[in-house]
Amino acid sequence: MKASVRDSAILCQRAAVQVAALSTEARNALLCSMADALQAQVQAILAANAEDLRLAREKGIGEAMLDRLALDEGRVRGIADAVRQVAALPDPVGRVTHRERSEKGFTIERVRVPLGVIAMIYEARPNVTADAAALCLKAGNGVILRGGSEAVRSNRAIAACLHGAMRAAGVPEGALVLLDDLSREAMLELVQLSDIVDLVIPRGGEGLIRFVTEHARVPVIKHYKGVCHLYVDAQADLDKALDILVDGKTSRPAACNALETLLVHADVAATFLPRAVATLRERGVELLGDERTRALCPSMAPAGEDDFAAEFLSLKLAIGMVDSVDEAIAHIRRFGSDHTEVIATEDRGTADRFVQALRSAVVMVNASSRFSDGGELGLGAEIGISTTRLHWYGPMGAEALTIERFVLRGDGQVRHAESRR
Amino acid sequence: MKASVRDSAILCQRAAVQVAALSTEARNALLCSMADALQAQVQAILAANAEDLRLAREKGIGEAMLDRLALDEGRVRGIADAVRQVAALPDPVGRVTHRERSEKGFTIERVRVPLGVIAMIYEARPNVTADAAALCLKAGNGVILRGGSEAVRSNRAIAACLHGAMRAAGVPEGALVLLDDLSREAMLELVQLSDIVDLVIPRGGEGLIRFVTEHARVPVIKHYKGVCHLYVDAQADLDKALDILVDGKTSRPAACNALETLLVHADVAATFLPRAVATLRERGVELLGDERTRALCPSMAPAGEDDFAAEFLSLKLAIGMVDSVDEAIAHIRRFGSDHTEVIATEDRGTADRFVQALRSAVVMVNASSRFSDGGELGLGAEIGISTTRLHWYGPMGAEALTIERFVLRGDGQVRHAESRR
Repeated sequence: MKASVRDSAILCQRAAVQVAALSTEARNALLCSMADALQAQVQAILAANAEDLRLAREKGIGEAMLDRLALDEGRVRGIADAVRQVAALPDPVGRVTHRERSEKGFTIERVRVPLGVIAMIYEARPNVTADAAALCLKAGNGVILRGGSEAVRSNRAIAACLHGAMRAAGVPEGALVLLDDLSREAMLELVQLSDIVDLVIPRGGEGLIRFVTEHARVPVIKHYKGVCHLYVDAQADLDKALDILVDGKTSRPAACNALETLLVHADVAATFLPRAVATLRERGVELLGDERTRALCPSMAPAGEDDFAAEFLSLKLAIGMVDSVDEAIAHIRRFGSDHTEVIATEDRGTADRFVQALRSAVVMVNASSRFSDGGELGLGAEIGISTTRLHWYGPMGAEALTIERFVLRGDGQVRHAESRR
Repeated sequence: MKASVRDSAILCQRAAVQVAALSTEARNALLCSMADALQAQVQAILAANAEDLRLAREKGIGEAMLDRLALDEGRVRGIADAVRQVAALPDPVGRVTHRERSEKGFTIERVRVPLGVIAMIYEARPNVTADAAALCLKAGNGVILRGGSEAVRSNRAIAACLHGAMRAAGVPEGALVLLDDLSREAMLELVQLSDIVDLVIPRGGEGLIRFVTEHARVPVIKHYKGVCHLYVDAQADLDKALDILVDGKTSRPAACNALETLLVHADVAATFLPRAVATLRERGVELLGDERTRALCPSMAPAGEDDFAAEFLSLKLAIGMVDSVDEAIAHIRRFGSDHTEVIATEDRGTADRFVQALRSAVVMVNASSRFSDGGELGLGAEIGISTTRLHWYGPMGAEALTIERFVLRGDGQVRHAESRR
């Protein structure tokens, strides 16, 4: 008999208390043996994955999805290495972020504690199973995973390795739940367990994320899409700007931190655009331009409002021309997704204006939007990227899976003197 | 014609951008002139309040509610002073909480930015109108206030003062919205504006908070209740423990940080309980005990499970006896509300065990639960207390109304070398 979603979640909540109580060393050792188990059982994982792939092909699933689903020995080693990297990160749990002595003589500390139980809802990529488990356990949490149906056998094989390592370490397996029931009803039940689940992180297509957000009774952290902008200012170093543009658009166009829109200051458009257009076309990028851009580069297709709001996730770029940094800011405020924006400029004042006026999760000066990533920003690994401007904003690592609370140590202090003996 | 909730919220979102762009000095000066305006127009506020009180009495509203509603010159001065205190707090906006240089040569900063638009839903107390406005504007946000119908005239008079000060400072009045429409439908609309409102904070009775939580499509931070515990350990200094007990229960029993349950270690029960019972009864506290407590103090009424889960908000205390700190921890985990827990002990190891095992927002050693308050914990002022273990946990001041984002400054760095010219 399958355990119900609620029963599994209750067990997870109880087990999470035991994970939280582990020492830093014990939690890190657990993660290392999870990584070892993944590598030791690589053949079982690959066999399960082959079956997932066979069925996916039968269903006629597209190549991009098949690529995300497919594992080989190298990829499994990569998954295990990622878990080891999480083990090597500093422990966010117990970190004292603030300490002061009150005038009344007690000390006040702010100390990080685990969130509790985290539910992760995701699609085809089986590596998320190990990544999310590692990050959640690292931060002392229980985790409930609801993967995609295409990856069900791969996910089960990975979870079996992780559970084996937990058993061997004496950590209750219930702290890591891989949901068996992949129905919509079970997912609904999961995201409405407001007395048990502390946070839901959906990762995948916009449809999945909207469904979760709409139905959740539990806090949700997510990003719908990444419409990332590069603004090339009149004071830009155009060589740097071109590097940043090419890297942002072409190094991995399907990533959420890839560029979707280029805005160019009119003063440098005549110099920059022809070079940019030639370089991008050489690399197979399809270009769409607004009216002024097309006046300069008539071979370009027209870009409409929908194009400026779109996350292409492919070798496609919308280009607009502006007369000032303020016009660029206004465009980004209107069409942006609060993910990542870049300015190329050598003028410090213009850079500051851009940084301060935009409230996106990641704002960059003279660097590629592709650095908007947990690993690159020093978080070690990421469980997702938040454009929810609450709790965490931007790439989320282990620290984002904890919360600061207050610890006060006194010597018998009371608030009202009349309470004294 | 009244503006619709959505229209007001859109204006608020636009105006919030202008509030966020103000300098620290300009935001603080605005708050000071808001405080001055409240004091200058005290007679208008008191006249409006008198009308609210008259109608509330006609409706037969209880004394406790009337007391929360009532203003006099001293209380208005107190409200103005609280706004000035918020002005004097350090500015959370723009604060750099972390800075590092990546190995690739760019700098990574984490910098606090405003949340955006905050909606506050509250009941009878008109001081919340000024407090919430001051804290939200201090942190560079727009704010939408939905007060209780009993305080509608008082709230309008206070908002008129605040709007006057905003006008004089050239800050768009739309950044502070006091909703005219107090219907449930309007409240529902407000808490479902997920594209405009960044956070809803409900404050008031559990019914109101549950209604908001159930219907919101916007993140909600709240606490339902404060079932705060004092555990008197076998190694407690019993004099200190008694002070903390009396202060926690009697100094303001209707506050959420007042004690509701006393747990006593069996080894000190025979010494401590008779003293505690006599002192508390002298101060009019009604006592309920579990079986073992009543064996020692037979005059006590029995405490059932409901009593241990209750927030009495009055001079009433449930008492239980335990054989160890672990039994106390288990009791608190079962019945607690994650608000505030206190241990009285001179044993550092036992204190550490209590602090680490409990995940409540505020955990204290040898100090009164009544210190669980923004002012006492060094936040200067508080907009509420969160037992939502996400974004903020415990008393929330101005910093809790901001969020950290990433700012990266480079010199043309790209992620993939092949992107170079």
